[in-house]
Amino acid sequence: MSSTTLKGQPLDRPVLDSMLRRRMFYTPSFEIYGGTAGLYDYGPPGCSLMSNVVDLWRKHFVLEEDMLEVDCTALTPHEILKTSGHVDKFADWMCKDPKNGEIIRADHFVEEVLEARLKGDKEARGLKIEEKEEDPKKKKRKVKGTEAVKLDDAVVKEYEECLAKIDNYNGEELGELIKKYELKNPNTGVEPSPPVAFNLMFQTSIGPSSNAPGYLRPETAQGQFLNFAKLLEFNQQQMPFASASIGKSFRNEISPRAGLLRVREFLMAEIEHYVDPTGGKKHARFEEVKDVELVLLNRHTQLAGKTDVEKMAIGKAVADGLVDNETLGYFLARIQLFLKKIGVDQSKLRFRQHMANEMAHYAADCWDAELLTSYGWVECVGCADRSAYDLTVHAKKTGAPLVVRERLDKPISVTEWVVELDKKKFGPFFKKDGKTVEAAIEALSQEARESLAADLKKDGKITVDVEGVGSGKVEVSKDLIVIEQRTRTENTREYTPNVIEPSFGIGRILYSLIEHNYWTRGTEGGDEARGVLSFPPIVAPTKVLLVPLSTHESFKPLLKKMSHKLRTAGVSSRIDDSSASIGKRYSRNDELGTPLGITIDFQTVKDNTYTLRDRDSTKQVRADEETIIKAIKELAEGTKVWADVAAELPAFEGQEAEIPVR
Amino acid sequence: MSSTTLKGQPLDRPVLDSMLRRRMFYTPSFEIYGGTAGLYDYGPPGCSLMSNVVDLWRKHFVLEEDMLEVDCTALTPHEILKTSGHVDKFADWMCKDPKNGEIIRADHFVEEVLEARLKGDKEARGLKIEEKEEDPKKKKRKVKGTEAVKLDDAVVKEYEECLAKIDNYNGEELGELIKKYELKNPNTGVEPSPPVAFNLMFQTSIGPSSNAPGYLRPETAQGQFLNFAKLLEFNQQQMPFASASIGKSFRNEISPRAGLLRVREFLMAEIEHYVDPTGGKKHARFEEVKDVELVLLNRHTQLAGKTDVEKMAIGKAVADGLVDNETLGYFLARIQLFLKKIGVDQSKLRFRQHMANEMAHYAADCWDAELLTSYGWVECVGCADRSAYDLTVHAKKTGAPLVVRERLDKPISVTEWVVELDKKKFGPFFKKDGKTVEAAIEALSQEARESLAADLKKDGKITVDVEGVGSGKVEVSKDLIVIEQRTRTENTREYTPNVIEPSFGIGRILYSLIEHNYWTRGTEGGDEARGVLSFPPIVAPTKVLLVPLSTHESFKPLLKKMSHKLRTAGVSSRIDDSSASIGKRYSRNDELGTPLGITIDFQTVKDNTYTLRDRDSTKQVRADEETIIKAIKELAEGTKVWADVAAELPAFEGQEAEIPVR
Repeated sequence: MSSTTLKGQPLDRPVLDSMLRRRMFYTPSFEIYGGTAGLYDYGPPGCSLMSNVVDLWRKHFVLEEDMLEVDCTALTPHEILKTSGHVDKFADWMCKDPKNGEIIRADHFVEEVLEARLKGDKEARGLKIEEKEEDPKKKKRKVKGTEAVKLDDAVVKEYEECLAKIDNYNGEELGELIKKYELKNPNTGVEPSPPVAFNLMFQTSIGPSSNAPGYLRPETAQGQFLNFAKLLEFNQQQMPFASASIGKSFRNEISPRAGLLRVREFLMAEIEHYVDPTGGKKHARFEEVKDVELVLLNRHTQLAGKTDVEKMAIGKAVADGLVDNETLGYFLARIQLFLKKIGVDQSKLRFRQHMANEMAHYAADCWDAELLTSYGWVECVGCADRSAYDLTVHAKKTGAPLVVRERLDKPISVTEWVVELDKKKFGPFFKKDGKTVEAAIEALSQEARESLAADLKKDGKITVDVEGVGSGKVEVSKDLIVIEQRTRTENTREYTPNVIEPSFGIGRILYSLIEHNYWTRGTEGGDEARGVLSFPPIVAPTKVLLVPLSTHESFKPLLKKMSHKLRTAGVSSRIDDSSASIGKRYSRNDELGTPLGITIDFQTVKDNTYTLRDRDSTKQVRADEETIIKAIKELAEGTKVWADVAAELPAFEGQEAEIPVR
Repeated sequence: MSSTTLKGQPLDRPVLDSMLRRRMFYTPSFEIYGGTAGLYDYGPPGCSLMSNVVDLWRKHFVLEEDMLEVDCTALTPHEILKTSGHVDKFADWMCKDPKNGEIIRADHFVEEVLEARLKGDKEARGLKIEEKEEDPKKKKRKVKGTEAVKLDDAVVKEYEECLAKIDNYNGEELGELIKKYELKNPNTGVEPSPPVAFNLMFQTSIGPSSNAPGYLRPETAQGQFLNFAKLLEFNQQQMPFASASIGKSFRNEISPRAGLLRVREFLMAEIEHYVDPTGGKKHARFEEVKDVELVLLNRHTQLAGKTDVEKMAIGKAVADGLVDNETLGYFLARIQLFLKKIGVDQSKLRFRQHMANEMAHYAADCWDAELLTSYGWVECVGCADRSAYDLTVHAKKTGAPLVVRERLDKPISVTEWVVELDKKKFGPFFKKDGKTVEAAIEALSQEARESLAADLKKDGKITVDVEGVGSGKVEVSKDLIVIEQRTRTENTREYTPNVIEPSFGIGRILYSLIEHNYWTRGTEGGDEARGVLSFPPIVAPTKVLLVPLSTHESFKPLLKKMSHKLRTAGVSSRIDDSSASIGKRYSRNDELGTPLGITIDFQTVKDNTYTLRDRDSTKQVRADEETIIKAIKELAEGTKVWADVAAELPAFEGQEAEIPVR
């Protein structure tokens, strides 16, 4: 699948990359030291684009819904990430090439070699080779060319089945595949070592003694969960509510590639929306978004090996049970509205549902907002229902009550099987095992208690399984224990909320946004096509370019005055009073995505009127200072578009002959 | 020195601390896991205060002066921080108590024990003990009480001299002091181990193999320096210019204390302003600030052991040579204007010049903006002239040309001694030592060349010192070398710019800002005094509190409408429709620093008029919706103050009897 620019032209990525580097949108970090894979710095336009997008995010989500924004540390002690499961599970499988020491991601390696063999088979059979859509999550290493070798039909089938299940293999299984199919590193011709788990977190040590290991957080979520009880208190115990956080996270990728799409340090914006798990996870404002139409790729379609999407109102998707609940659906719609606002091409957006084997075991449902780029479909926003998992594990580990206590309007009566131990006798009887036996009894389910109550009545004793005590079976006689059904009245209800988590990878969104708004403008003289980034004014790094017609002294005070007035109006501008031609100066700013240009000429000196130029159409209007500033403010804030301004103000022709008009 | 609130009341820090925690301005990170020293999370009001301050910083510095903002990674490979000097020098000296394993900062320990002995001596002599101003940089550990023991006069003098020089001792010297004075850890009674250097950077490993050590950056500056050449290009080769960066930095403090003032992860905002070192480092906009008066504590006063300050216009301070140059002076004034804008108490601000021994050896001059808090004077902004140091070391290490090339208006002719080697003969003659000898000759100074030219003429050969080759003396005969004076014409000038670096510790500024704006309001009923945070509206976390008179249904649509209108106007508001009394609800928001309150009552339902309350005076005005929103917008943006609004709109009395008026 070939990717296209905003105007449907074929997208030439090397040309775009070169422009982005030249204009310093981003640049490899530490480049004068040779660079470090997976680390990028944002230069001035990239930095400004990022803050504008983050600012809009904060307005669209945090302010719009009174979310509680927090800023937690990236440094995280070991114990927290042990509890969350990251220490044990946040890992990829890696192999080492014994010959050249190359380190390879095991799943990518198996996939790459099998695909190369299948490609060679097709060549040998004289079949057309479809270019597979690149998946940036599995960006290939540079490897030597493939040989055209025909395979047995049965082998082809085996390879294809293996590739379809590639995400499901663990390290041992990947190792078996490497052995079984004799997979060799194409760069050295040798078989890599068996896969070992490589944890993706950066490890460090907190404090002067080395016995306090810690990590850089791989997501901002955990800090939010740990503050749950305080945030609930801050919210005056009202449910539902959401916390939000914008900050850097860190993942020590084995082989980062694909520019900003797979990096080791990145900005995330995450929301943790806490909701009562009972009552179907309704959302009070779902009504406002129910007619928003989303392009959905559901898990059943994917399981059938297809990628057909369906366009559907989110109201219907929730009603049909395709999207699990209203709250999840509400956020999917809100995510789409946000992406639209910042200028993402809506025809290059889809929501893909996770397949069962992709989701964490505790997740109820999960959809990714994916944006189409020249690297294929890129996961830019995840939206998962994490259920009560995180709050439950942290509460269990620390004993902190990460729960909501709700006063019931009508008290309810609860009948259940209750165990009561005669503590005075129980302790001395079991001695050192007392605590263990007690815990095992307390942990018994209602069903078990009911059945044991019958045993106790019948035999005058019960037998309980207690791991680690004696034979593992412990007898407790009726003089130590009472088990009976009792009824009590409850005035409050206590529950662990579920979490709906929309999680945004800002760097990926920025890169996709750049591709979606990029196009090239032909030139009259037949010169090389010139790049344009048609960002919406609201996110554009700089809103206005100020250009004097020449370096004539009389323009200087006017430039200074206009620049000051725009700043006061809250609009960012830049002056280019270099001696380059006006056309060159505008070209440079087309590449920077500056939507508007003001030209100051000799007429301006006379009558204080200014020419205002639109980046996309290169059309110009002319009016007095006050009118121009007002128009700019409206365009920058998004309350008007160029067509409105062009309709209201007189067009201006001439004096910009160098700017080609398509 | 006792600290005071905004209204001059004695500041009760435990009461303030408790309020800040209750209102979740910030909170120890990972508290449910027992917390980790030196790590804090910002809760909703702290987070909002921080983004407002950062936003103003960006407007005041970056946008106002067209600085080039960049966002560089925190992860930094070893080599960069080795070159910058951080690997070798960014360390504190630490001792270990052999008995209880306690880890102690050596300088703090020596200071603490000697001070305790001097205090004991004073007690024994029956002298009054002055409470020394606390220095949060040297926050004391909790130690057992001091005994009243009289010392010899000579010993007192020795201790005092030692304390005066405490910042100048290295680890070995600190160890000698511990031995000499038999300094024991008051907590255990034993002498700690000799001091060892402890590097304050968090170390980690970048990438899957463990041979790529890296650190978390201890400052944002290095990333900016490494991008210098690209930024200069982006700025179209124009000098002077500045880069700026806002981001987290990390320092593994040995014993972090004093809340937000000494933490392990913190937000910095740093500017690197590049200036031509010749011509006195003038600044084009110095004229605009020359009359700004600063409170200065110069290094001569400090050397004399005093803290007397002088108030002086920055123009005079630069003219007198007290502040090294205009650019440095310009930024000192701009720093003060920024601190004023966000609400720092100007009577609790001073600029302290670094003493020669405090500055890095390469620094030309350095001043800290210090804010007075209950912890003493806190360094919140550093403003240093780093000279050409950083660019020079990185250029030398990498070979990257971190220089400015300037076209000269008039070409200049340069006459100098030039060395020319006959490469064809030179290489074969010296064989493997060729490169080394060549480098030694190229490195010769103009003076040395002149003298060697004379030798060559006289003896037909020269003798050059070349370390590591033969005896260290190498002879070069005249058939291999020519040394002569030549004159050439230069059209460009090349130089390494100097760097003026204003560096802001945002967390320290926020904490000081909180103390400076805190006061307590007495209550009529004689209840406990209520806390108020009188932030200027422009930085206040939330601008407006919306309170309905009661939970009556008729207020709900009005609340929703007003909340929506304020959001559209870009003003943050919060609704409190809890059943608490209006007074309680306002109290809570006084503690949150919310400057304005809107009350919705039955009159509102009738005629759409609203009461607007001022946090500081608790005065109220009443007007129609449109007028109220306009007033709020002007107050929030800082274009008007409450007195203006009170003069324009009719006062409103009553219905808020519970709010005490001072």
